[in-house]
Amino acid sequence: MNANNVTAPSSEPQSLFLRACLGLDVAQTPVWLMRQAGRYLPEYREVRRQAGSFLALCKNPELAARVTLQPIERFGLDAAILFSDILVIPEAMGMELHFLEGEGPHFPHPLTRLADLDRLNLPDPEVQLGYVMGAIDEIRRQLPSSTPLIGFSGSPWTLATYMIEGGSSKKFAQIKTALYDDPPFLEGLLERLVTAVVHYLNAQIDHGVQAVQIFDTWGGILGPDEYRRFSLEPMTRIIAGLKRRRPDGTRVPVILFSKGCGGYLETIATSGCDVVGLDWTTPLGQARARLGPKFALQGNLDPAVLYASPKRIHAEVRRVLESLGNQNGHIFNLGHGMEPNLDPEKVPILIAAVREESKRIRGQSSTHV
Amino acid sequence: MNANNVTAPSSEPQSLFLRACLGLDVAQTPVWLMRQAGRYLPEYREVRRQAGSFLALCKNPELAARVTLQPIERFGLDAAILFSDILVIPEAMGMELHFLEGEGPHFPHPLTRLADLDRLNLPDPEVQLGYVMGAIDEIRRQLPSSTPLIGFSGSPWTLATYMIEGGSSKKFAQIKTALYDDPPFLEGLLERLVTAVVHYLNAQIDHGVQAVQIFDTWGGILGPDEYRRFSLEPMTRIIAGLKRRRPDGTRVPVILFSKGCGGYLETIATSGCDVVGLDWTTPLGQARARLGPKFALQGNLDPAVLYASPKRIHAEVRRVLESLGNQNGHIFNLGHGMEPNLDPEKVPILIAAVREESKRIRGQSSTHV
Repeated sequence: MNANNVTAPSSEPQSLFLRACLGLDVAQTPVWLMRQAGRYLPEYREVRRQAGSFLALCKNPELAARVTLQPIERFGLDAAILFSDILVIPEAMGMELHFLEGEGPHFPHPLTRLADLDRLNLPDPEVQLGYVMGAIDEIRRQLPSSTPLIGFSGSPWTLATYMIEGGSSKKFAQIKTALYDDPPFLEGLLERLVTAVVHYLNAQIDHGVQAVQIFDTWGGILGPDEYRRFSLEPMTRIIAGLKRRRPDGTRVPVILFSKGCGGYLETIATSGCDVVGLDWTTPLGQARARLGPKFALQGNLDPAVLYASPKRIHAEVRRVLESLGNQNGHIFNLGHGMEPNLDPEKVPILIAAVREESKRIRGQSSTHV
Repeated sequence: MNANNVTAPSSEPQSLFLRACLGLDVAQTPVWLMRQAGRYLPEYREVRRQAGSFLALCKNPELAARVTLQPIERFGLDAAILFSDILVIPEAMGMELHFLEGEGPHFPHPLTRLADLDRLNLPDPEVQLGYVMGAIDEIRRQLPSSTPLIGFSGSPWTLATYMIEGGSSKKFAQIKTALYDDPPFLEGLLERLVTAVVHYLNAQIDHGVQAVQIFDTWGGILGPDEYRRFSLEPMTRIIAGLKRRRPDGTRVPVILFSKGCGGYLETIATSGCDVVGLDWTTPLGQARARLGPKFALQGNLDPAVLYASPKRIHAEVRRVLESLGNQNGHIFNLGHGMEPNLDPEKVPILIAAVREESKRIRGQSSTHV
């Protein structure tokens, strides 16, 4: 069985990554890694030092471009992803933001009620987020045209957790209180975020990203009805508002990744996305059976496997690939981001295993043309 | 449809809680709350101050009994649960344990390899854990005989995470490295924990607990194959080793709660447990459909609902109950423990809603005798 086995249009993409996003035939499975540009790379830490702070790095187009390219140059991954942070959106909307060393993001003035939404403005991506667009321009200048560039945003629900809790949270007491007792406040915030994210992602597409991913890190803390209403529904509205074709006619695939939401795949299938990101708790074969062939899948190796021996990494990569078997529509990735203390030397082992094993699996039968 | 609609034996229990565990008819749904004895209660904080430290409170049978009884006296819940901590087992096995104020548990000498297992002894529950047995004796003396007492233990997998990571963890890098690269070490540890927990829970049953719950807080960080092998399989061996009948012939139900494992219910069904605990991401009706009528269900209100208004608490309680409808085999509970900053005044609202709504639902039709 092939996913999305559509007749090839003239604008059919050439890269493994974009072809896999659209369910087209590929000779081997493409691979990129969430948080592939980051602290586990010594060359990243060097640039981060140069920038002075994490936020300064995000806001410097030259340096942001440089760290975006580092993992491509070092490992030859099949796609680059813009280096930035999901919280640049709330900051551009007017919220003061600090990254405290070792403690994560901090909003000293979190939102507490409906009236606080008046403090938020709708950012012009070319102005308040011009540094992101500058980074994309710079990346596109330096990145080989054969390597696709992925843009991204946080989901409205995930952004709202930080804006209401004031930072990372374990208990989510504030936003859940809002969810249960003050839906107009929460929904008003989500609505503003939908608009801001649509503008932001469309500007990224205008500047040359060829696919976009929506990161919904915190969808999994919600029950099924709340997930549908407060996490998925705003993402669905975003997807409906995106420019899905580039000027040359190629489709811009949308990847939706709701961590910890393997129980909600049938709901996710209604979002309009092209690719569903999976963490390691849902086997790819099960996800394909539940979602049907219309969706490409992205994932889903436990990042902790990269703490293991080369032999074990190879075996676990094979297990992920064999869970789907010889089917199109798969982008290999981790089920969550690269950890800062991982050994970069493990990455080429993973990539080689993906290529070797996916070619082997594809060679085993001839159900694809 | 009724769950476990068995013919009533002469030893059929009278309490709502035990009847519901066994799928027997009840006039209303019983309710207790995970971590119902704890910091959200001012009378608990007073006793905790008296004890000097958290561990000292666990080790003082009089005081442990007193805090166990507090929520029963204040709220009239349908079951009491022994006040203790899951980490008394590793401590009794010989591991130094501290509870750092505001930082949680800390093992200064975590286990790192197979040879470290020689440091562990098999505790005699009447000796190294005699204070727990003393607390049970004291609780049974003071608790009305109509109120069942629940004993508990952590699951081997969950205990192992603390013993290998050295405390609470977010990334679980150490235990996952062991899982992938040193299974003999991890499985050796799990085997020792299985034996220790079987002895511990059987001693609790001897001293008078009428049901036991296995808390598997961290099963949800595992993929499906690893969950089966490292979390569920040791729990299955424990359940097989338990005394399932008290001297008077009444059955001792086993509740298994693997947080974040709604995707693995079909695996959990093989464990031999009587009751499956659920967090709020799996609707009760869906769980019943997937598990079949042989299992009672426990849960599954999001504890964050208790931050909400009385009206909203009532509505959410009703929603949980209506998800199962008029079926036996349900114990109302939260999907995770009570939070320290919750208002105790919310608890009677929850309890009243459970009783009112479950009686209403049971009155709606006559599918039960």
